[in-house]
Amino acid sequence: MDKYLFGIDVGGTTVKVGFFKEDGILLDKWEIPTRKENNGEFILSDVAQSIENKIESQGISKGQIIGYGCGIPGPVTDDGRVLGCVNLGWGEFNIEERMAEVFECSNVKAANDANVAALGENWVGGGKGLSSMVMITLGTGVGGGVIINNKIVAGFNGAAGEIGHAQVKDDETDYCNCGKAGCLEQYASATGVVKEAKRILSSSTEDSKLRSIETLTAKDVFDAAKEGDKLANEVVAILGKYLGKVMAHVSCVVDPEAFLIGGGVSKAGSILIDAVEDVYKKEAFRASRDAKILLASLGNDAGMYGAAALVCDKKNN
Amino acid sequence: MDKYLFGIDVGGTTVKVGFFKEDGILLDKWEIPTRKENNGEFILSDVAQSIENKIESQGISKGQIIGYGCGIPGPVTDDGRVLGCVNLGWGEFNIEERMAEVFECSNVKAANDANVAALGENWVGGGKGLSSMVMITLGTGVGGGVIINNKIVAGFNGAAGEIGHAQVKDDETDYCNCGKAGCLEQYASATGVVKEAKRILSSSTEDSKLRSIETLTAKDVFDAAKEGDKLANEVVAILGKYLGKVMAHVSCVVDPEAFLIGGGVSKAGSILIDAVEDVYKKEAFRASRDAKILLASLGNDAGMYGAAALVCDKKNN
Repeated sequence: MDKYLFGIDVGGTTVKVGFFKEDGILLDKWEIPTRKENNGEFILSDVAQSIENKIESQGISKGQIIGYGCGIPGPVTDDGRVLGCVNLGWGEFNIEERMAEVFECSNVKAANDANVAALGENWVGGGKGLSSMVMITLGTGVGGGVIINNKIVAGFNGAAGEIGHAQVKDDETDYCNCGKAGCLEQYASATGVVKEAKRILSSSTEDSKLRSIETLTAKDVFDAAKEGDKLANEVVAILGKYLGKVMAHVSCVVDPEAFLIGGGVSKAGSILIDAVEDVYKKEAFRASRDAKILLASLGNDAGMYGAAALVCDKKNN
Repeated sequence: MDKYLFGIDVGGTTVKVGFFKEDGILLDKWEIPTRKENNGEFILSDVAQSIENKIESQGISKGQIIGYGCGIPGPVTDDGRVLGCVNLGWGEFNIEERMAEVFECSNVKAANDANVAALGENWVGGGKGLSSMVMITLGTGVGGGVIINNKIVAGFNGAAGEIGHAQVKDDETDYCNCGKAGCLEQYASATGVVKEAKRILSSSTEDSKLRSIETLTAKDVFDAAKEGDKLANEVVAILGKYLGKVMAHVSCVVDPEAFLIGGGVSKAGSILIDAVEDVYKKEAFRASRDAKILLASLGNDAGMYGAAALVCDKKNN
């Protein structure tokens, strides 16, 4: 009898649900709105109802469901405590106890969404087959996930993998969303790339394709850099410098087999990898210098995959 | 019937052997010379012979020995491969297979000595009761060990915890032993503290107690700093700045419950912790800001303890 898994990626606007075979094959996926009223108390039961409907429509028995995994946009400890999640209206509680109730299943597991995305990439994505890896997601912000022996490192405060908040610049005058100044996120996120580009454009009189673009995006910056635009390449070099430096520090801590770069900014591809790799190889401890630097491959589905991987015994690694 | 463990800490000059009860009580310890001839091929059999003698003299049967753990001054992977160890004349080989032979026991385990020292502190030392911690050893060099869920993180190349080689200064002109320039070790090791003190003394005309000391040591620098010597305090502040910064980066990666500072330099005590803590609290991501910063307590015996902990099921945590 076939066995199935559900991977649930809870976001601030929608919840993505993935319906998987136990070997990681995605059979179906859908989204439901994230109901944040009453401090988000309906979110999990809405998901349970939606999954219930799916099971019925597929003629599957409850006994065929191995488990339910869940990614959450906030810190989650190893033992399932959510330590507050502003986007959802959630305070501190044990989400795994709640999941066991609403899904009527004992094999439930939750983790932070960036960590879960890393696990998904490790399970069936760009990091498949690696025993240890660190994923860095360059999106609106910069997130990360540390995987050791195919397991998430959650951290004592659920804050492992918060690589975006490694401080890289001492004399920064702008503040990061976290309250510090000079975090990696300020230079390596999509927002950061645009901000740095504007800073460089305004402090230079040099010609640049970027000057003619009204609403500048990170993609514009990388596209111009690929076409040889000097100022755009300066912005890419700044990203490469700070990200490469942080990765070298990460290596000194956990010495991963590979780094996986994901998120919207990673669509820039080889120009980004090259910029990072040059700095990384120069600054990393020699034993870790040959760590692979790879691109993530699951895109926005990584969280769903990783959530399913949380409750899957049959890892492919 | 009582059960026993042996913890073996292999150094370049001597091998320390600890004879333990399974609950971590040290019953006896001794040292034998490290015979490096013939590429160190006699080291493990010398240890086995020495332990054999001990067992006989104590009237213990082989069946009472739970296992043999070993710390090595070089990189060791999770599956027991030594990746070369210059100090001992060793090349690349699987030390656990060799240990199983010479000790005639299947419960054998080896790891890098700095990592093993961290595990020892976690078992019965300054980090007892912590589920995750990062130990930083400030000695002649700067070593480190990362413990997650009471287990060593070894790293893909056996180089996890090599925190001394995190690059902290971009414009350093002196080189570190590792070949890079600007590593933490250059400012936070005993050697580094002395070097920085000399640099500051020669670049300033200000009076300092340190000027009258012929052969300056790190202890002299801390003693003078405690007595209010301004230049000595500048040296301590430099150490605090770079070490605090690196610890903040480490937190972004693994978010440990605590940091443990060990090694000769850590004998300086609270003046060191204070210097580091100020910077750490300022630069760490807010969720990790309250990580404890503690002193190691086992001194030079930490490696022996940790080696025994490698093969002990009965962890106290």
